[in-house]
Amino acid sequence: MTVERVGFIGLGIMGGPMAANLVRAGFAVTVWNRTAAKAEPLAELGAAVASSPAGVAERSEVTFTCVTASRDVEEVVLGPGGIAEGARPGSIVVDCSTVAPATARLLHARLAERGVGFLDAPVSGGDVGAKAGTLAVMVGGEPEVFDRALPALRAIGKTVVHVGPPGAGQVVKLCNQVAGGLHLLAMAEAISLCRRSGVDPGKMLEVVSAGAAGSWMLQQLGPRAVAGDFAPGFMVDLMQKDLGLVLEAAHETHTPLPGTALVRQLFEMLQARGRGRDGTQAIVEALRLLAGG
Amino acid sequence: MTVERVGFIGLGIMGGPMAANLVRAGFAVTVWNRTAAKAEPLAELGAAVASSPAGVAERSEVTFTCVTASRDVEEVVLGPGGIAEGARPGSIVVDCSTVAPATARLLHARLAERGVGFLDAPVSGGDVGAKAGTLAVMVGGEPEVFDRALPALRAIGKTVVHVGPPGAGQVVKLCNQVAGGLHLLAMAEAISLCRRSGVDPGKMLEVVSAGAAGSWMLQQLGPRAVAGDFAPGFMVDLMQKDLGLVLEAAHETHTPLPGTALVRQLFEMLQARGRGRDGTQAIVEALRLLAGG
Amino acid sequence: MTVERVGFIGLGIMGGPMAANLVRAGFAVTVWNRTAAKAEPLAELGAAVASSPAGVAERSEVTFTCVTASRDVEEVVLGPGGIAEGARPGSIVVDCSTVAPATARLLHARLAERGVGFLDAPVSGGDVGAKAGTLAVMVGGEPEVFDRALPALRAIGKTVVHVGPPGAGQVVKLCNQVAGGLHLLAMAEAISLCRRSGVDPGKMLEVVSAGAAGSWMLQQLGPRAVAGDFAPGFMVDLMQKDLGLVLEAAHETHTPLPGTALVRQLFEMLQARGRGRDGTQAIVEALRLLAGG
Amino acid sequence: MTVERVGFIGLGIMGGPMAANLVRAGFAVTVWNRTAAKAEPLAELGAAVASSPAGVAERSEVTFTCVTASRDVEEVVLGPGGIAEGARPGSIVVDCSTVAPATARLLHARLAERGVGFLDAPVSGGDVGAKAGTLAVMVGGEPEVFDRALPALRAIGKTVVHVGPPGAGQVVKLCNQVAGGLHLLAMAEAISLCRRSGVDPGKMLEVVSAGAAGSWMLQQLGPRAVAGDFAPGFMVDLMQKDLGLVLEAAHETHTPLPGTALVRQLFEMLQARGRGRDGTQAIVEALRLLAGG
Repeated sequence: MTVERVGFIGLGIMGGPMAANLVRAGFAVTVWNRTAAKAEPLAELGAAVASSPAGVAERSEVTFTCVTASRDVEEVVLGPGGIAEGARPGSIVVDCSTVAPATARLLHARLAERGVGFLDAPVSGGDVGAKAGTLAVMVGGEPEVFDRALPALRAIGKTVVHVGPPGAGQVVKLCNQVAGGLHLLAMAEAISLCRRSGVDPGKMLEVVSAGAAGSWMLQQLGPRAVAGDFAPGFMVDLMQKDLGLVLEAAHETHTPLPGTALVRQLFEMLQARGRGRDGTQAIVEALRLLAGG
Repeated sequence: MTVERVGFIGLGIMGGPMAANLVRAGFAVTVWNRTAAKAEPLAELGAAVASSPAGVAERSEVTFTCVTASRDVEEVVLGPGGIAEGARPGSIVVDCSTVAPATARLLHARLAERGVGFLDAPVSGGDVGAKAGTLAVMVGGEPEVFDRALPALRAIGKTVVHVGPPGAGQVVKLCNQVAGGLHLLAMAEAISLCRRSGVDPGKMLEVVSAGAAGSWMLQQLGPRAVAGDFAPGFMVDLMQKDLGLVLEAAHETHTPLPGTALVRQLFEMLQARGRGRDGTQAIVEALRLLAGG
Repeated sequence: MTVERVGFIGLGIMGGPMAANLVRAGFAVTVWNRTAAKAEPLAELGAAVASSPAGVAERSEVTFTCVTASRDVEEVVLGPGGIAEGARPGSIVVDCSTVAPATARLLHARLAERGVGFLDAPVSGGDVGAKAGTLAVMVGGEPEVFDRALPALRAIGKTVVHVGPPGAGQVVKLCNQVAGGLHLLAMAEAISLCRRSGVDPGKMLEVVSAGAAGSWMLQQLGPRAVAGDFAPGFMVDLMQKDLGLVLEAAHETHTPLPGTALVRQLFEMLQARGRGRDGTQAIVEALRLLAGG
Repeated sequence: MTVERVGFIGLGIMGGPMAANLVRAGFAVTVWNRTAAKAEPLAELGAAVASSPAGVAERSEVTFTCVTASRDVEEVVLGPGGIAEGARPGSIVVDCSTVAPATARLLHARLAERGVGFLDAPVSGGDVGAKAGTLAVMVGGEPEVFDRALPALRAIGKTVVHVGPPGAGQVVKLCNQVAGGLHLLAMAEAISLCRRSGVDPGKMLEVVSAGAAGSWMLQQLGPRAVAGDFAPGFMVDLMQKDLGLVLEAAHETHTPLPGTALVRQLFEMLQARGRGRDGTQAIVEALRLLAGG
């Protein structure tokens, strides 16, 4: 029995285009958003609009959530008028927010009590990937639940990987942010050393990106960073939210991550200067400031 | 007038195969090595063997050097029986060692006094790239000298880029090591967090490598690191030598590189345990030790 | 009008002896503790025992709290049966716990609505100082409230300083932990370098403690650390709780504290090895582990 | 047989007053300085002036050196016209410079070949201590050589401690700089957190200095740092020279010192802004810059 009716809660920069892709893929989509106006474009595309998360869940075999913080997803799932009140046994909740692995495990357990499946399915790829339907989706949860939800997941992402049990999706997303944060620092330190040594950083990026010290960040964001283009793909404020989750999760298992702890301190420099809404490539500015501008 | 006669000094893990590629490319090659036995395989390929660096330089339009440390290259170029004693005006010395940018600038100036050109041309790509002739070569020096030496450089590398004036090649190589070192730390912290959260690091690498947090290190060395395969592509001891050069060069211009400074301290952990001849992917072991094994 | 009737809530390792000192100083003391058995020694000294925090506050002009975490103090003050239910207008609550400055400001505001004064008054000096009545007390709050509570504060501490408005006491306590944590790291790095250079660390401590690089930690905990005596004055787990508060508070104002962030990561090493109940001088063990045992 | 004739080489900010104290203590003092003019004040006090280090050593039972770097002390001891050419068997060389422990061991070995004793005796206490004769002196070398030189050492320092074999004095001095550097960072982070939380740092220093998180730096330099008084006791440039020696010596034994490595990077920030001649308390400025000024 394939999934036909899908819900979507949280129609922001990421969630809006993801919901639209589900409509376009032919699913019968019901949506809800805290600020109701954001549901209008979806309604125009043909989505139904419910008056509460519970109302979405009542009509859906798979209900997606895509909100900001742990407490937001807890509220739309477990709060008054939340998904848990409307979801039928056998239905599935898929949370695409980036939240603590512990939150994912809690939601999985609480929904399991009602016979409702849960997948933590954070995504990577930014608003560009959300629009294009090319997100990477890292999914934690039970294999059979994953299999049932897969057709809907394929409508929002190009790479959809089941990475382990409940919470594992969030763990992998946090690992992604650990690597991404340190790659940004790598880019910034390489550019700073290059500039202060009087060498053209564009030439450096060209050679270094092509070899064993290459990375997506260096290749894609390096040229923007050198050009002083700090328009956000992914904002510093959101990176700091995620690095906060990383260090909390690492503290739970007492896993030292000295590099990530340092990256977080360097992004504080940007936030302290009111640049939290710049793109993460603005970390080159932190290194520039260290070196005296 | 094209280059026909080429010299090569320093026939180690990198220099040996590079010299062989020059022979195969049709150049008339003369070689010298401190330990004479290492010249034999080249002689069998058809290279002439000189009795001193000066002897190599006398017969060569372009003389390559590929040794370990700043003092080594200073000795083969400027020491008794060194290249400077034999090199003719108009000839070119190309140093492929990774040394301080200041050393490169010194050698350029001293050889210029004799009418001899100099390029600093450190390489990236390891012994595999040296054998295959697919090294990346980052070249600093005067443009016309670069142009004349280019046919010989093309015999050893696939990506040959003129990155700036004398010393710029070394600067770019140091930037390469800054990025590479931090990418290794990124890989190690992501794997450590993943493992201690009970999630399969192989799955994590698969997803993370494919997206915005991907890097050559994560993709190529991540699986080896997870499998406990620490056979060297590039050895910890050599990385530490290079990171020492980085921090010295950064200190000259007072450029703070806090991430690189941290990476160096973590590699000390491996050297302290006698693992300096492991490959740099062994940095996962440092993070494992931090987390209590 | 001087304070005569004093309450004390939270009779743990710190609170128990502090309450006893208030009894000995001649105040009429009423106590309450979640685990009732801990109130018995105080009852034997002559303290009354109430059945709830509200019951303590009803009878007290000044009510002290000394609990573990922000949520604990929020509960005993604002929760059901809490101090706010019993405290009379004009009475004062003094919180000696180490919690977030934001919590102190919240409690101050909520109690002010009922005409009840609030002081945040975290202490330093350990169980030894609590018993001896020689604690340092860092007090935030309104000056006239401080003045009224001062006689009671003098019974528990030797150095009692009004450091600023509500929350300032907690801020100063967090600064104290920043300095203390980095002094512990200083001690550990100095001992590690000394040992691995083959020099007697006892001699080193003797000379260094006496000069411009001296500190209380080096002088008092250095010899214990060298002797391998890790019995707690102050436990690693509590230091980590406090450093967590520090980094949270610093994040609120986006204040980079890279050294403190590093100290926290090094203490994770000890917690990862189940040594959270060791004294903080065990940080020498973290440095020993870095250097390969 | 007691020491009567003493030599002094290197009459800078530290060496000048130290030599003067030897004259005042009644020793027959012969001096030499690279810049001859600096010997004049000593001549006026009654010191003889030699024309070379060898000339000083010829006339002296104990010859002090107090210069800047390893290569300087190597030159005045082993270079042409150096101490080694003039020193008689049975005489003693005491080096008060801060240099690498390896340099101390080298000089000890080379002088031992000529029957000349050697002590490494770096000092702590600044120009104030040098003038007052209250320096701390950390002495490495053979016990009987130490005993013979002790009367002369007592004329320059208040605390004179034999800390171990040749090189141990330098090791202890480097440990002193490790601790001092991290104490400065502790001071700066505590002040930065305090200020940005809106609390008076003077009050904070008053309380924190008095307790378990107290240090000489916090007590003596904290108030100057808060007042913006960056006049040097000890200059940033010299601290960086010493931290460079620390990290080199630590690298020789592969001893990770992550905190010290970080401190060095923060002082780079000051050097990058041309503030190398400020006192080390200017590290508060580095933390202020991190937080956006």
